[in-house]
Amino acid sequence: MFERILIAYDGSHGAERALVKATELAKLCGAQLIALTVYRHHSMLEASLSMVRGSMEPGSNLDESMRAAAREAANYAKSHAKDHGVEQVSAFIKAGQPARTIVGFAHEKNCDLIVVGSRGMGATESYLLGSVSHKVTGIADCPVLVV
Amino acid sequence: MFERILIAYDGSHGAERALVKATELAKLCGAQLIALTVYRHHSMLEASLSMVRGSMEPGSNLDESMRAAAREAANYAKSHAKDHGVEQVSAFIKAGQPARTIVGFAHEKNCDLIVVGSRGMGATESYLLGSVSHKVTGIADCPVLVV
Repeated sequence: MFERILIAYDGSHGAERALVKATELAKLCGAQLIALTVYRHHSMLEASLSMVRGSMEPGSNLDESMRAAAREAANYAKSHAKDHGVEQVSAFIKAGQPARTIVGFAHEKNCDLIVVGSRGMGATESYLLGSVSHKVTGIADCPVLVV
Repeated sequence: MFERILIAYDGSHGAERALVKATELAKLCGAQLIALTVYRHHSMLEASLSMVRGSMEPGSNLDESMRAAAREAANYAKSHAKDHGVEQVSAFIKAGQPARTIVGFAHEKNCDLIVVGSRGMGATESYLLGSVSHKVTGIADCPVLVV
């Protein structure tokens, strides 16, 4: 019933549970699974870090390590799905604001389902601004499974 | 992968789309499908209606007609699922606050998935207080599919 499922995976416990469900569902439907890990580009953190960073190279190391962590998370999600019998799996990383980036990418890739964890991607932000899963369900143009 | 799916159905367009997906998913999983229609008890509307109701019998006719409409909606959801090949389907109506009633009933019935429309059950309330689907995803103790 679903042909192309996007799993938003950031390595959190919520995302882990979401990955398990997304994998089961992709296998059941014979769907393609697309793993996406969104990370924050340093410019988004600039304001909060500029006072403590001191003489660091402006942002470059931070960017590099966030990108590396995101790549690792996305690859893990891909391996998990492959190991559990999903045949078509791909993994992507993207910098940006989580909910908008997830929904934009799902739209771009013609996904007919987005799977997200109910928590994760910043507990403080979630508390203050509403969780990523809430934002995704609010702006997505396809069904969203919140796990 | 899901064994007992609750579909929250109120007759809105969003709920209609949700019903279609819930039916497909229940069939695919060989799951039991439980249709629930939540309606407002008149006491909840008392404040806003007391000024316009005039000499009506206090609430009883209103209650009666809301219950009848809810019963009709729940039966429609059940028929739809049956007609589309889901073998185990049951339909219930309950009075109460939509999100809490949906989540409480899903918990009581040991459901492992709740399916809700992304809109519906009061557009104005949705605008002012957040939609029912947002509230359900926020308080549910099982995965929620927002369609």
